[in-house]
Amino acid sequence: MSSNNCLSIQVDPNDNVAVVVSTDGLPAGCLLADGTELRERNPQGHKVALVDIARDAPVLRYGEVIGFAREAIARGRWINEAMLRMPEAPTLDALPLATRKAADRESLEGYTFEGYRNADGSVGTRNILGISTSVQCVAGVTNHVVDRIKRELLPRYPNVDDVVALNHGYGCGVAIDAPAAIVPIRTLQNLARNPNFGGELMVIGLGCEKLQPQRLVAPPSLPGQQTPQTAHASIVSLQEKRFTGFNTMVEGILERAKAHLERLNRRTRVSCPASDLVVGMQCGGSDALSGLTANPAVGFAADLIVRAGGSVMFSEVTEVRDAIHLLTPRAVDEETGRALVREMSWYDDYLGRGQADRSANTTPGNKRGGLANIVEKAMGSIVKSGSSPIVDVIGPGERLRRKGLSFAATPASDFICGTLQLAAGMNMHLFTKGRGTPYGLALVPVIKVATNSRLARQWFDLIDVDAGRIATGDATIEAVGWEIFRLILAVASGHVQVAADRLGLRNDLVLFNPAPVT
Amino acid sequence: MSSNNCLSIQVDPNDNVAVVVSTDGLPAGCLLADGTELRERNPQGHKVALVDIARDAPVLRYGEVIGFAREAIARGRWINEAMLRMPEAPTLDALPLATRKAADRESLEGYTFEGYRNADGSVGTRNILGISTSVQCVAGVTNHVVDRIKRELLPRYPNVDDVVALNHGYGCGVAIDAPAAIVPIRTLQNLARNPNFGGELMVIGLGCEKLQPQRLVAPPSLPGQQTPQTAHASIVSLQEKRFTGFNTMVEGILERAKAHLERLNRRTRVSCPASDLVVGMQCGGSDALSGLTANPAVGFAADLIVRAGGSVMFSEVTEVRDAIHLLTPRAVDEETGRALVREMSWYDDYLGRGQADRSANTTPGNKRGGLANIVEKAMGSIVKSGSSPIVDVIGPGERLRRKGLSFAATPASDFICGTLQLAAGMNMHLFTKGRGTPYGLALVPVIKVATNSRLARQWFDLIDVDAGRIATGDATIEAVGWEIFRLILAVASGHVQVAADRLGLRNDLVLFNPAPVT
Repeated sequence: MSSNNCLSIQVDPNDNVAVVVSTDGLPAGCLLADGTELRERNPQGHKVALVDIARDAPVLRYGEVIGFAREAIARGRWINEAMLRMPEAPTLDALPLATRKAADRESLEGYTFEGYRNADGSVGTRNILGISTSVQCVAGVTNHVVDRIKRELLPRYPNVDDVVALNHGYGCGVAIDAPAAIVPIRTLQNLARNPNFGGELMVIGLGCEKLQPQRLVAPPSLPGQQTPQTAHASIVSLQEKRFTGFNTMVEGILERAKAHLERLNRRTRVSCPASDLVVGMQCGGSDALSGLTANPAVGFAADLIVRAGGSVMFSEVTEVRDAIHLLTPRAVDEETGRALVREMSWYDDYLGRGQADRSANTTPGNKRGGLANIVEKAMGSIVKSGSSPIVDVIGPGERLRRKGLSFAATPASDFICGTLQLAAGMNMHLFTKGRGTPYGLALVPVIKVATNSRLARQWFDLIDVDAGRIATGDATIEAVGWEIFRLILAVASGHVQVAADRLGLRNDLVLFNPAPVT
Repeated sequence: MSSNNCLSIQVDPNDNVAVVVSTDGLPAGCLLADGTELRERNPQGHKVALVDIARDAPVLRYGEVIGFAREAIARGRWINEAMLRMPEAPTLDALPLATRKAADRESLEGYTFEGYRNADGSVGTRNILGISTSVQCVAGVTNHVVDRIKRELLPRYPNVDDVVALNHGYGCGVAIDAPAAIVPIRTLQNLARNPNFGGELMVIGLGCEKLQPQRLVAPPSLPGQQTPQTAHASIVSLQEKRFTGFNTMVEGILERAKAHLERLNRRTRVSCPASDLVVGMQCGGSDALSGLTANPAVGFAADLIVRAGGSVMFSEVTEVRDAIHLLTPRAVDEETGRALVREMSWYDDYLGRGQADRSANTTPGNKRGGLANIVEKAMGSIVKSGSSPIVDVIGPGERLRRKGLSFAATPASDFICGTLQLAAGMNMHLFTKGRGTPYGLALVPVIKVATNSRLARQWFDLIDVDAGRIATGDATIEAVGWEIFRLILAVASGHVQVAADRLGLRNDLVLFNPAPVT
């Protein structure tokens, strides 16, 4: 078969492997562009040796060592994950900090979207009544009330998009004074202040719980954290003496909700510069094309947002750890570089306490998709961050402090990462995927980008953007990057509905609680 | 005021404190039965010194040392939690094991309920289609499907009570090979086999997740665990090639659900002996009356269930830890005693790794309710276990193995404990509370018992049993115990609906995952 039909990509000229990009994989006998002949059938996304690789020799992809050959690998052979020994993670004590000067890039002017301007300066992309809860005990009553608000009240407030209960498993039965409890607590405090809630903070509490509802309304100032002013806050506790029986509780909550809905309903969308975007980026169900198609396109869009003055965050510590030596040079200053190192180190310790390590990342689906190990996955994952300098690093559950590209340290779990990015103040979410997930969030729109066209075709109504066209040469990274940037503005404005919103798909919030439960 | 109106209870003749039981507390000047005159106002549930207590002298309640006086305490004074220094926890290396011979008690014959007999011998108290999920990614689609089943299918299957999605935050983004991961994994495996699902095991998976759905259907046999046979199991994975778009997924799942519903719909209730009951006991939002009213009555009911040949489990390691020296003597043999010690020790280590200890238990509500510390709380908590010998100990997420009274080692968090008791095979749940919580579960009926009549009156439609009558002398422990036992049989038969089911209050499942997330 001629090399025209035998599509593969070698990312870096130093790489001794290429990745098959043809949708159905390639048969034995295929001739790649460099003359390598496949010795066996090779699935899409999997690696082919471009030269004879000796036993124990490094295997390079993205110009980086992703493993060492366990046995000699002949040119043209399929390299599966069992054939590679994983390298050690980069040591954290001698990394270059803030050594790479960012190229000056032209700022992007004139891009706007229609958003809801908040009193604290943030901008919402939706107009939602968020009902925070201080403890899971109240979930049953809260869900009942949300149903009634949707049925009875929401039709009277046509400018309010939705009402959402922020249910979670925290609040009591937890070691609330353990050092790591700060993570779930500040997550809940900051979630309640997501820009899509318009400064309205309504809390349903119980009364006897460890996380007293006042802590959500008036959190003490944390070092380095500015707690944004909340215009209107209220608390209803189910154990209040004025409630006699279930119906009085429900009526009490409905009355309180009305006041919040009245104010939310008076809001209208106004033209806002793209610098008001706060975009969280994540990948889930990655494959070996993630780093070639969807993630580079998203990274290009990230650069556009930064050039327009907006905020972008990337996350997922375990998918960054093995590429940390490529990130610390991009820190804007040494302090930010040290903050990156500190978050990696914290996570190494956290995994170690649980007798796990970074190899716990990578899933069966990742491997079927051609990713040999977490090193290869990480190289593809960080591409989402584009090429901007890293201006800040926030811990899990903290709120973003600076415009530009920040690293928000979170686990890679899709739902924990999403929850923490919501707490950080995200108003738009980008999610790339190779294997397919029907991910959706109630709080912000999620734009889902497929890494391959097979998935985009099969899940035609669940995917928003097909970045697989980059692999087949039908589109460039730049073109898909601009497409994503323009789609963000259209979705943020409410002009275009994402697939998850059209179908009503919502995943639950999941808190990160590294402290014990009791 | 005469002692007739100044109600207080001294539990043990050696106690140097009594607890105020009058609903509104007692004013200064009140004369207690023993002649002690109150020196100040004392709230309900709080302690009064019955003698002068010297600085550093022990304070005794339940005949046990619950603390040491920080300063001298005069007779008649209110003892609040700040006045007590907490004792050390009992050491675990020299506890008496299986030293108390249980008194022979007459077996109870002839008590039955109407239940759903399963192929594996267990009995359901409800007839529910449970939809297990292998990963949180599928929650949005699963919730959509459950809504459609309720609307479109359930009316055609009148003998099926409900359809419930077993959503959770586990399945991917987790260190699945960490030693402690066994806990959430076996919890999900056993949850799917709760007797109320009638042996029908329907799983919705994604495809690329770490917890592959096959592990829920055919879990490998675990040491010491019998995995019950599941009559009918099915898996639908959203990434299956046959699905092209969202609607085909939904239709595929609905088809699969029909087969399960057909079989469930053919089931009818049959008369079952009380020995088929599997009752989980828990307390939440405790106060100082918990150990005087609701918990003793529930403990009496527990003894009745054991005498009838049924299964009872009590739980909540952090509420048992300080009373462990009262429990190990009740173990049926030394091995069971050592298993109790092992679970306490595991939890000590787990809390220690998170820089917390047993004092992390007790909530603001517990303290307002008169509980000075975890020692006093534990003494009241274990009263739920009644007086039967402890025949077995299971770890978190394991399934009960023996009839009689077992200790199921779980955290005290209401929702984690409830979830683990469901996994253990619970078909009825007893929940005692002093402060009030609108707790409810979708999978099994929850009978809520109030420790005080004030709560029972205020939450008249949220509480099932008022055990506060015991404090005021309007009912005996025995009478309320029998009332609870008979109510269990009536609710298990579907003849009486509990408050949570009448109001449709359901709390989410919360998994216990002591392993790291990634």
